[in-house]
Amino acid sequence: MQQSTLVRLKNDLELKKPILVVGLPGVGLVGKLVAEHLVDELEAEKVMEVYSPHFPPQVLVNKDCTVRPVSNIIYHGKANGKDILFLVGDHQSTTSQGHYELCSLYLDIAEEFEVPIIYTLGGYPTGKLTYEETVLGVANDIKLIEEIKKYGVEFRESEPSGGIVGASGLLVAFSRMRGIDAVCLMGMTPGYLMDPKSAQSLLKLLCKIFEIEVNTDSLQKKAEEMESILEKLKEKEEPQGFPVVKPTDEDLRYIG
Amino acid sequence: MQQSTLVRLKNDLELKKPILVVGLPGVGLVGKLVAEHLVDELEAEKVMEVYSPHFPPQVLVNKDCTVRPVSNIIYHGKANGKDILFLVGDHQSTTSQGHYELCSLYLDIAEEFEVPIIYTLGGYPTGKLTYEETVLGVANDIKLIEEIKKYGVEFRESEPSGGIVGASGLLVAFSRMRGIDAVCLMGMTPGYLMDPKSAQSLLKLLCKIFEIEVNTDSLQKKAEEMESILEKLKEKEEPQGFPVVKPTDEDLRYIG
Amino acid sequence: MQQSTLVRLKNDLELKKPILVVGLPGVGLVGKLVAEHLVDELEAEKVMEVYSPHFPPQVLVNKDCTVRPVSNIIYHGKANGKDILFLVGDHQSTTSQGHYELCSLYLDIAEEFEVPIIYTLGGYPTGKLTYEETVLGVANDIKLIEEIKKYGVEFRESEPSGGIVGASGLLVAFSRMRGIDAVCLMGMTPGYLMDPKSAQSLLKLLCKIFEIEVNTDSLQKKAEEMESILEKLKEKEEPQGFPVVKPTDEDLRYIG
Amino acid sequence: MQQSTLVRLKNDLELKKPILVVGLPGVGLVGKLVAEHLVDELEAEKVMEVYSPHFPPQVLVNKDCTVRPVSNIIYHGKANGKDILFLVGDHQSTTSQGHYELCSLYLDIAEEFEVPIIYTLGGYPTGKLTYEETVLGVANDIKLIEEIKKYGVEFRESEPSGGIVGASGLLVAFSRMRGIDAVCLMGMTPGYLMDPKSAQSLLKLLCKIFEIEVNTDSLQKKAEEMESILEKLKEKEEPQGFPVVKPTDEDLRYIG
Repeated sequence: MQQSTLVRLKNDLELKKPILVVGLPGVGLVGKLVAEHLVDELEAEKVMEVYSPHFPPQVLVNKDCTVRPVSNIIYHGKANGKDILFLVGDHQSTTSQGHYELCSLYLDIAEEFEVPIIYTLGGYPTGKLTYEETVLGVANDIKLIEEIKKYGVEFRESEPSGGIVGASGLLVAFSRMRGIDAVCLMGMTPGYLMDPKSAQSLLKLLCKIFEIEVNTDSLQKKAEEMESILEKLKEKEEPQGFPVVKPTDEDLRYIG
Repeated sequence: MQQSTLVRLKNDLELKKPILVVGLPGVGLVGKLVAEHLVDELEAEKVMEVYSPHFPPQVLVNKDCTVRPVSNIIYHGKANGKDILFLVGDHQSTTSQGHYELCSLYLDIAEEFEVPIIYTLGGYPTGKLTYEETVLGVANDIKLIEEIKKYGVEFRESEPSGGIVGASGLLVAFSRMRGIDAVCLMGMTPGYLMDPKSAQSLLKLLCKIFEIEVNTDSLQKKAEEMESILEKLKEKEEPQGFPVVKPTDEDLRYIG
Repeated sequence: MQQSTLVRLKNDLELKKPILVVGLPGVGLVGKLVAEHLVDELEAEKVMEVYSPHFPPQVLVNKDCTVRPVSNIIYHGKANGKDILFLVGDHQSTTSQGHYELCSLYLDIAEEFEVPIIYTLGGYPTGKLTYEETVLGVANDIKLIEEIKKYGVEFRESEPSGGIVGASGLLVAFSRMRGIDAVCLMGMTPGYLMDPKSAQSLLKLLCKIFEIEVNTDSLQKKAEEMESILEKLKEKEEPQGFPVVKPTDEDLRYIG
Repeated sequence: MQQSTLVRLKNDLELKKPILVVGLPGVGLVGKLVAEHLVDELEAEKVMEVYSPHFPPQVLVNKDCTVRPVSNIIYHGKANGKDILFLVGDHQSTTSQGHYELCSLYLDIAEEFEVPIIYTLGGYPTGKLTYEETVLGVANDIKLIEEIKKYGVEFRESEPSGGIVGASGLLVAFSRMRGIDAVCLMGMTPGYLMDPKSAQSLLKLLCKIFEIEVNTDSLQKKAEEMESILEKLKEKEEPQGFPVVKPTDEDLRYIG
């Protein structure tokens, strides 16, 4: 069985205890939107690529008709003079075993660079259509929870009650055994569609924690596009009832 | 492929040929309820943790919003001066291969500590709603069957006719090749829902075998709660017929 | 990943270029019925057991309430002074990969004992309810086909057109690369139910090839029981039409 | 876990930087039809066989009732004095992991023989019944795209938008990391049935690139047979509507 492959694009990568921010695809694509926005705004540089037989056996086509394999990518950026690594990607693992294998690989990298804290970003599906600005959290340490609370993150007893499926959860839980602090921040989202509005709330909060300011125009634009799409859907379908397909319980359990 | 991981929490664990009691999730959660009840009542101490890529790629959220990976746990307790190891957990393997791999790991531990006998606990789905106090057994040795019969366990020719799926069965069958006695005790249960009442019957019998007495208040309370839930469901739905969804054949084959 | 395990029950097994007869579960259980009948009639002795994580994670319960893991078993018998190995079992692999792995293991054993020829036994699903005595064949060598034809085995151009799925097919194809002759003999069967009648036809032909005679009373009894069951089903259901569930195309492709 | 196996049929294979042409089964069987046609017309010689536990656990029956395992085959032919390797086969991998493993194996072979360029052939499902002669392309290098455009291959921005699933895509993307040029050529096809007409368009274009001429009678004949089958289907079913089952989105995403 072939294993996942890490390709290092820079051999002389010198980082000072970088923070790791993880935004892989999940509910509402909230985490992916936030992390990729920061990669763009902070002009972060691609430093590692991860390929895996646990990704779909598929290639993606670029605008210029060249192709690239499905991958997860690590970028290096700086904010407030601090190093930040961003883990983003096209897909999460398609198998249970792959989730565990990739999580283990990412924590090896975190250990290698002496990452002191990991922020995994995701969406929390409410199943309701109304917008909420709340950002929900879980963490791998009780003291850390107290600190993060100060920034306005909500911690609700035993929530999410169905647990957290995928990289966002596994990285937080298993980083404890490596002595790394970790928190999962989840933007509340209906969970039906890509949610740039929820991403804005989550981004705002993350900027507060990092003590940085970033331009949010592109996210704002995406949010407006999304709203106009929803508006059109509502106009069209309102007579027959609810415009969007309800996610199954299975979908709602996924937080990513 | 990453394999299952055993984390030893105590390096100086000295046990005198401990009994191994296995109560993993299965039909009616009967085995899990009994084993976890004994862990609580005997104030057993956590001594090992098992993580596996064959568990769901998911983390569970504690009351205080910290998270923990899905795991199986081994506790060490004492009853009547005898050492007992309890194997309990959040999930069984989600893959066939994982069942075999984890079973092999657990039997390695049993051999290491010179376990003389294994009791796996489970539920036997009757498909009927009426309660039965019977505890059914299978074992890996004909002499052992004769001994266990004395405590009131019923052994019915070729039953369960569909075999036993999961850890409860595999551990009993494969322990024979390691020279370890093993018996699987199954509380009769409708099989539709968590069944603390069936767990009480099974617990009673196990206490008789171990010559111990334990407080059963918490199980009794759970049983009463469950009955009141069922009562309410019946009141609501009786006019339209049977209140609970019937398990599929697939469900009924699972004994756990 | 745990691999399949071979347990040798006899260390001093001395065989003179034994024939290998394979009768694993498949369509109509034809191959299994024939091979197990010969094991009984020739009083063959159990010499090897095979366990595999590719079998269902399940144990089977014996009449006396002891349990045994799902396994494939190799027996050693003698017919006409010649050594014969019989490969029978509870299940075939549940995964594609397992089929290839187990097939490779069985051919290792065949090579070790210098097996000159392998007969795999199976059923050929006709999808019709009428009985046919025909036995169909495929082989891994054109000369071998000519020889086997003499015994009355039919070879039909490109048949079975859907190929042969499972051990019966893989063993015949891959044995060629090991220099071992192999033929797959398939009793024609409706394919809906266990078919002891088709097994009788196949057994008769195999006895002709081996130049032996065996008592077929028990198979005859099974065939009569089966017919009386079918008779009852027909009586009951004829008014509403066809008594038995039609297999799907998927089922019919399986030859075993 | 057993891995894929490469069998070399010739030990002294001396090739001068051969081109690799890949035509494995996919949408409309377009790629397979073209590659197998060239193998026949150029009288290419079988030089390697690949077996894999990721192929279906099945054997295929030849006309003469001998059997052969599912395999991928590499042939060696010559066109215009240049060496060409053809990779064709019965099946692609049935698992994601197998796709990655086999792709890696094929690129090892390409590296070993210093292949300068790979052409993977496939079909592009239009979902429409009308015929189009267009051949669509993607490649792993922007300069290569400019070169290939000259032959009349169309490159459409970000198309196929759903990516390319299977060997045709993976080989093009991953060959970049080995320093090998690669292009995927896709014949437009309704995507519902085997499409020898689309194969003819693709073949014509490939011959232009290779500066060769080949007899296309057999493809032409297949195309006529197919059309007469479609004609009959239309006559029969037109009153009840559209004659052919529409592929699902899942089917249409597959390009092969």
